[in-house]
Amino acid sequence: MSERGDSGGVGVAQVGEFGLIDRVTARLSYGSTVLLGPGDDAAVVTAPDARVVASTDVLVDGRHFRRDWAGAHDIGRRAAAANLADVVAMGAEPTALLVALCVPADVETGWVEQLADGLGAEAASVGASVVGGDMSASPTLTIAVTALGDLAGRSPVTRAGARPGDLVALAGRTGYAAAGFTVLSRGFRTPRLLVEAYRRPEVPYAAGPAAARLGATAMIDVSDGLLADLGHVAKASGVAIDLRRDAFEVPPQMRDAAQALGVDPYAWLLAGGDDHALVATFPSQTVLPDGWREVGRVAEGRGVTVDGAPFDGPTGWDHFR
Amino acid sequence: MSERGDSGGVGVAQVGEFGLIDRVTARLSYGSTVLLGPGDDAAVVTAPDARVVASTDVLVDGRHFRRDWAGAHDIGRRAAAANLADVVAMGAEPTALLVALCVPADVETGWVEQLADGLGAEAASVGASVVGGDMSASPTLTIAVTALGDLAGRSPVTRAGARPGDLVALAGRTGYAAAGFTVLSRGFRTPRLLVEAYRRPEVPYAAGPAAARLGATAMIDVSDGLLADLGHVAKASGVAIDLRRDAFEVPPQMRDAAQALGVDPYAWLLAGGDDHALVATFPSQTVLPDGWREVGRVAEGRGVTVDGAPFDGPTGWDHFR
Repeated sequence: MSERGDSGGVGVAQVGEFGLIDRVTARLSYGSTVLLGPGDDAAVVTAPDARVVASTDVLVDGRHFRRDWAGAHDIGRRAAAANLADVVAMGAEPTALLVALCVPADVETGWVEQLADGLGAEAASVGASVVGGDMSASPTLTIAVTALGDLAGRSPVTRAGARPGDLVALAGRTGYAAAGFTVLSRGFRTPRLLVEAYRRPEVPYAAGPAAARLGATAMIDVSDGLLADLGHVAKASGVAIDLRRDAFEVPPQMRDAAQALGVDPYAWLLAGGDDHALVATFPSQTVLPDGWREVGRVAEGRGVTVDGAPFDGPTGWDHFR
Repeated sequence: MSERGDSGGVGVAQVGEFGLIDRVTARLSYGSTVLLGPGDDAAVVTAPDARVVASTDVLVDGRHFRRDWAGAHDIGRRAAAANLADVVAMGAEPTALLVALCVPADVETGWVEQLADGLGAEAASVGASVVGGDMSASPTLTIAVTALGDLAGRSPVTRAGARPGDLVALAGRTGYAAAGFTVLSRGFRTPRLLVEAYRRPEVPYAAGPAAARLGATAMIDVSDGLLADLGHVAKASGVAIDLRRDAFEVPPQMRDAAQALGVDPYAWLLAGGDDHALVATFPSQTVLPDGWREVGRVAEGRGVTVDGAPFDGPTGWDHFR
């Protein structure tokens, strides 16, 4: 492995559970939301709003990530991002992460340290901290992350508030991570833009609370694919959603990769997950701030369409199939 | 499997990720701490104290539990108990659990439903609710639970506050789960008292907040074994702790099992984990309430002793070794 610290060559079994926890917690730093960090039975985190937003996501080796496709630092960032995106998609400000790590005994401690650094760096990028966790040996490397957040006095923006006439807006990229995944799974390492997007999503964190302040009626982070996730919004809200295909420009590198691999790039853009864009609905007269662009409209009815018709490609991911 | 519902014969792969999540969330119920339950990007939980206590523990199949030794309901209760115990050991009241479940594709949905029922039942026993989670297929069945809690205006009771002269007190049982584990690992199914204690710990939840109200100076839940966990307290507090061996009575069934299996029962009582008893230090003049009994004293120095001498048996568990 390329990412190793001084202790990189030491397997986790050699330092033991407590030794590894000590090594990891020594690398973490704690922001102002942390009243009591790791090392006790539980952490204590600020919750000034007197409500706490909480979400859990789990990543499994070989299914949600591959250690030969991404380094430990990027895998840590991605594991954190998946959860932090869920918190900002409620309109909340992330405060803390807790991490349950299951790791095969032959994994090197340096890999785990880099993973922790990646988790900590992604958390710090939004003012949150890794405040606790647990580790165990396991045949399967698994990273379960819980993110906490604070609503700062706002109502949570759920999936259920979209109303006919609302505009549908997107913040962040879609299709990049899916394209990068396809590229990697065909044995390529370029285009770099796509591969890097798969390795480390660029989540538009600030757009979540901003949308809440602006009166977003519904919001979700795009983890299963835009069509699937808007399907969740449409179902929860009891509405139909129609996307405009011309709102999605195919970037040149994605176009070229799609052509080379024989893939419809709109399958990436509309059905690819894991970029953790945010998609929200707003009252129709809303003037969207920087970072948000209109991609469709809410109507009476049910289901999600593209230019008025069902999308004729894959519509999302199911992690059991 | 004996614990199956109507859908017991259906493997999780057949119903898919979303189908399984729907089945599980339909079985859960939500107490007054839950402002928004499962089904959105994140849950919203009350945090009236404006601080939230949070702890994560992970259980790995074959390492922390065995499906042939305990049913799914008991495994769920035990996974919840391990985390809820951490929250009450800070002196907090549990409010919520989040569960990340990794499950092999051939596990039956009925097993997962029973697990969810067990998690929910244990949470409900302390007024908390399962508010969210995630599921994925994985070769290794893994249950990562995060528990949240509220301090109700009290200071958190950490491991670091024990002072020389304090008395050491225990609430709950020790050694029962370890004895049950030994019994099961030798191929026996009785004594039932011990085996049941291993399958489903009886955590003295109310004793945690009660100790905090009473002015406990330090507290920890006994998950690694009494000596190991008091070792954490002694180290964090910069003190020595001495236990009185005669404070630990060997119950008749444990004595008989120890004799039959050729085990020192004090190795179970003093070094066995997983009963999730609570051990705390209190100012020396404290009149202990029901449920707490004095088992030792805090002194100047370092380390943990029994009747003034090091314990000459195993002192705890390390989940990597």
